[in-house]
Amino acid sequence: MKKIIRERIELLREIMKEANIDAYIIPGSDPHLSEYPANRWKAREWISGFTGSAGTVVITAEKAGLWTDSRYFLQAASQLKETGIDLYKVPLPETPTITEFLLKELEKGMTVGLDGETYSAAGAMKLEKSLKKKEILLDTSVDLIDKIWTNRPLVPGNPLFALPVKITGQRVTDKLNDINDNLHEAGADCTLLSALDEIAWTFNIRGNDVAYNPVVISYAFISENETVLFIQPNKLTMEVADQLKKEGVILADYNKVKDYLRKLPANLSILIDMPRTNIALFNAIPKSCTIIEEASPANYLKSIKNERELEGFRNVMVKDGVALTRFYIWLEKQMAQGEKVTEISATQKLSSFRAGQPLYISDSFQTICGYAGHGAIVHYSATPETDATLQPEGLLLIDSGGQYLDGTTDITRTIALGTPTDAMKKDFTRVLKGHISLAKCKFPEGTRGSQLDILARKALWDAGINYLHGTGHGIGHCLNVHEGPQSIRMEENPVTLFPGMVLSNEPAMYRTNEYGIRTENVIMVREDSETEYGQFLSFETLTLCYIDNNLIHIPMLSVRELAWLNKYHQKVYDTLSPYLTEEEQAWLKEKTKPLDN
Amino acid sequence: MKKIIRERIELLREIMKEANIDAYIIPGSDPHLSEYPANRWKAREWISGFTGSAGTVVITAEKAGLWTDSRYFLQAASQLKETGIDLYKVPLPETPTITEFLLKELEKGMTVGLDGETYSAAGAMKLEKSLKKKEILLDTSVDLIDKIWTNRPLVPGNPLFALPVKITGQRVTDKLNDINDNLHEAGADCTLLSALDEIAWTFNIRGNDVAYNPVVISYAFISENETVLFIQPNKLTMEVADQLKKEGVILADYNKVKDYLRKLPANLSILIDMPRTNIALFNAIPKSCTIIEEASPANYLKSIKNERELEGFRNVMVKDGVALTRFYIWLEKQMAQGEKVTEISATQKLSSFRAGQPLYISDSFQTICGYAGHGAIVHYSATPETDATLQPEGLLLIDSGGQYLDGTTDITRTIALGTPTDAMKKDFTRVLKGHISLAKCKFPEGTRGSQLDILARKALWDAGINYLHGTGHGIGHCLNVHEGPQSIRMEENPVTLFPGMVLSNEPAMYRTNEYGIRTENVIMVREDSETEYGQFLSFETLTLCYIDNNLIHIPMLSVRELAWLNKYHQKVYDTLSPYLTEEEQAWLKEKTKPLDN
Repeated sequence: MKKIIRERIELLREIMKEANIDAYIIPGSDPHLSEYPANRWKAREWISGFTGSAGTVVITAEKAGLWTDSRYFLQAASQLKETGIDLYKVPLPETPTITEFLLKELEKGMTVGLDGETYSAAGAMKLEKSLKKKEILLDTSVDLIDKIWTNRPLVPGNPLFALPVKITGQRVTDKLNDINDNLHEAGADCTLLSALDEIAWTFNIRGNDVAYNPVVISYAFISENETVLFIQPNKLTMEVADQLKKEGVILADYNKVKDYLRKLPANLSILIDMPRTNIALFNAIPKSCTIIEEASPANYLKSIKNERELEGFRNVMVKDGVALTRFYIWLEKQMAQGEKVTEISATQKLSSFRAGQPLYISDSFQTICGYAGHGAIVHYSATPETDATLQPEGLLLIDSGGQYLDGTTDITRTIALGTPTDAMKKDFTRVLKGHISLAKCKFPEGTRGSQLDILARKALWDAGINYLHGTGHGIGHCLNVHEGPQSIRMEENPVTLFPGMVLSNEPAMYRTNEYGIRTENVIMVREDSETEYGQFLSFETLTLCYIDNNLIHIPMLSVRELAWLNKYHQKVYDTLSPYLTEEEQAWLKEKTKPLDN
Repeated sequence: MKKIIRERIELLREIMKEANIDAYIIPGSDPHLSEYPANRWKAREWISGFTGSAGTVVITAEKAGLWTDSRYFLQAASQLKETGIDLYKVPLPETPTITEFLLKELEKGMTVGLDGETYSAAGAMKLEKSLKKKEILLDTSVDLIDKIWTNRPLVPGNPLFALPVKITGQRVTDKLNDINDNLHEAGADCTLLSALDEIAWTFNIRGNDVAYNPVVISYAFISENETVLFIQPNKLTMEVADQLKKEGVILADYNKVKDYLRKLPANLSILIDMPRTNIALFNAIPKSCTIIEEASPANYLKSIKNERELEGFRNVMVKDGVALTRFYIWLEKQMAQGEKVTEISATQKLSSFRAGQPLYISDSFQTICGYAGHGAIVHYSATPETDATLQPEGLLLIDSGGQYLDGTTDITRTIALGTPTDAMKKDFTRVLKGHISLAKCKFPEGTRGSQLDILARKALWDAGINYLHGTGHGIGHCLNVHEGPQSIRMEENPVTLFPGMVLSNEPAMYRTNEYGIRTENVIMVREDSETEYGQFLSFETLTLCYIDNNLIHIPMLSVRELAWLNKYHQKVYDTLSPYLTEEEQAWLKEKTKPLDN
């Protein structure tokens, strides 16, 4: 494999020379700038052998480099060995950015190339401006990988399906009206959607073109007069096509989107979400049009779930809770009987319990099942080489989720496989205190997630501990398990929390080589009381699964925190028990019994 | 007075006509964009009669308007009555912004005028861009007020004085070196300082050109080769002039700064803090220079206090604490003896106690002394008309501060003048819980104030209460009581907290027409422990004054909160008592005695 990689890079260098390209950038994304690209667009993986979810390769005549972040330092180092590709660790202070690297390596007058289909308009324009300082050109119209990737997979052509209004809660025409209203407010006549989850949400369609995310490869143009869905014709059954046409949607070929854009009438105002639209598409818009650079209204509208979608979330939490309960019963029995369980076999078993639930589609992301020290690797994914056998001691962290037709789940639990140490219990309780503090907080309308983030961290910070990932990401409804624009993170995000938004609540802590602890529930924003000081909001916790009481150091919990936990456990038991056997009920009763201090 | 205002506006309209100006904007600021302008630059007050600290007047041929915020709605409504000036309440949704107003009122081809000396470069450029949409011009070179304000005050020519290095802790040359290092990092050759506190800090000079802020009207140009201080010659004694020259500073006339800028060599890179530099100065910079639009390095450097400055802060807190103790003893006695005390007489007495302390210069802002319902008016300032007589009941809020040669103070205490109600005690305790939570928090390096702000609000939010001002502002060292760039607010501010920064900690709550509660101490950022998760920081509380125990509802405090309070009171007593008489000591002992729960 390493030899093949070296050969591919040499091949690329040859055609770079022919094309007068002095440096070539291969980002890891697709034309829709998705978090998970379909295989056709795994060009970065193909050229480098690096399989992580984030990373960009740059090749020059002399050098080759991969830029990636701390989650992948170990994995990248091993996968890049003997490929001739250097690892650039982001954001270490000694690591040059890709722009700095290019400015250093290239001479005045040279050209940087990239496939504009896979690079955002915002990113390309910034890069172009920076390179200009040294009179280096940027050519965003060269897909060199396509010329050398002989057996490159096709654009996925899987059939799509329509989600009925009784699940989505809103008709396509109503969604289009909302989007058009938002466009008018922004002073725009129309917009182009290229983010796949926005399109799936807008048109009430789902598919399986991409692992874990039930989206459909497509583009959409939306204006008051004309709505066009660009999609491969073979994806559509007659029935879905008719249904979309009835909602006033014109169907066009996926490959015709650029032609369509080129013919847009002059003087049209088009809203473009620059970081979410690729530069090739952007460049197809006539110069006579006015570009309104703003966040996509569909993205925001999608994040505010309607009553039906929330009902779906409540349904899937019951199904997920039942599957999880059965899984943890199974795991406990296996361990008690001394049967061998590994990270991978546990993952498979959990997936099979979910698959037994109605309307299950797939997992919503690759399960993270990290035993002991593996739990401290934030994005750990067990491979046959690393697959650890669970022992009756230490901590097991499992972060998993399911896609169901009526909603999406994402849950992390950390359990003790033997008698936990005091240190483990204290760490677990610190994380739990953060989880509870966020779950039960109340805040005025207009509050941003970054203002609340500290609630989840405070008990950890007090002990000199921190975790470097976000506390909460948005979650789609039978859509991407990571969605924007809402978030709860240390980093600033101007989006304010609004009733109906669904997010994760996942404080954590990691002791390198020892264990990882994360407690994650899905929460939704809801209205709370209105006072003379205005409207207040709060969260409702949707996830239904016991939290391991064995790991709680009770004296560290306040009376109110303990009350929250006992009430939560009561709700878990009351809601799930009707779906469980008597034996399962008895087991869950024990796991959710109230704690006393 | 109302008649005079109407006449002035008519006069202005006449010369607007002559000058072909269709709308004229009169902001409330000076050429240094100061929070408190000297009298010469109170043009907005002169034209409108409105004396608030924030507000902008716009005059057209037909209309006249004042835009101001909620702090001043009542005051402005009363001061504008019968002047013909309409009140525009910011940011009510029905209120047009000034730009929206201009776009609506003016026709294509018309001209908006303003005195570019009193308008920021950032603001003027934004306004110009917006007006362009309707082909309306912006002329920033017309000072029409100057033509009609016959007895306009001169630029203040008060003498300045030098602060010795034993107080400032750093020589001018060392500060200049630090600034130049920062300029080089930003890729700039030089910068222009126009913010008065930055100049006073850089050159270790102080003055009394402006009420409450010991700054000196001046500009400064800084580069590695040349440092020029633009200042009125009559402000300088021979001694200070010699001292500055010895530090390599060239002295030039205050009025020559634009001439100097116009002659800057071509191709110079000049760093300009666009929101803190007026557009007239900005326009004097040759077009051949490269403008680097960044925050002023001097502003940031100033915010990180050195050991000497922090020592000064600790000194002034003792002096302030002694003055406050004596004041509250005096007040208690007066009330006990049934002597008449009003908001104004209390303010004067407090000021006199401060004035008795060594190195006192002046108050650091206009004292807010609000009895009962007046306490709920955030920026209340008692006038002879509103001056309330204190009664032996209800709450008294006093927010005051002093300028001393060795530091600046800012403190708010709320005390009960009789037996407080349960509601008062619960509200007071909620505010106190927020104050303590912020005072004792610990956070990783790189944390922004907006992340911590919620700690001060959480107990209030839990009860459906909020306050709409910031929790913490930066405080200068013998300089402006409000300084940037550091802050602790709900609003995002990208500046991270750094050891040596000094801020206020002032959560509050207001019950309209009933009372206001605010508990404010000055805190400084310091290093805390370093762990495997990085360097943590925390706050040290600097202010030394008792908190009214009578207002505390003890069951609402946790064991740790109570411990913080008792420890704080112990420190207040231990530090202040050596400076107090036996009688004063006994009184303070009682006020600071530990609480039990």
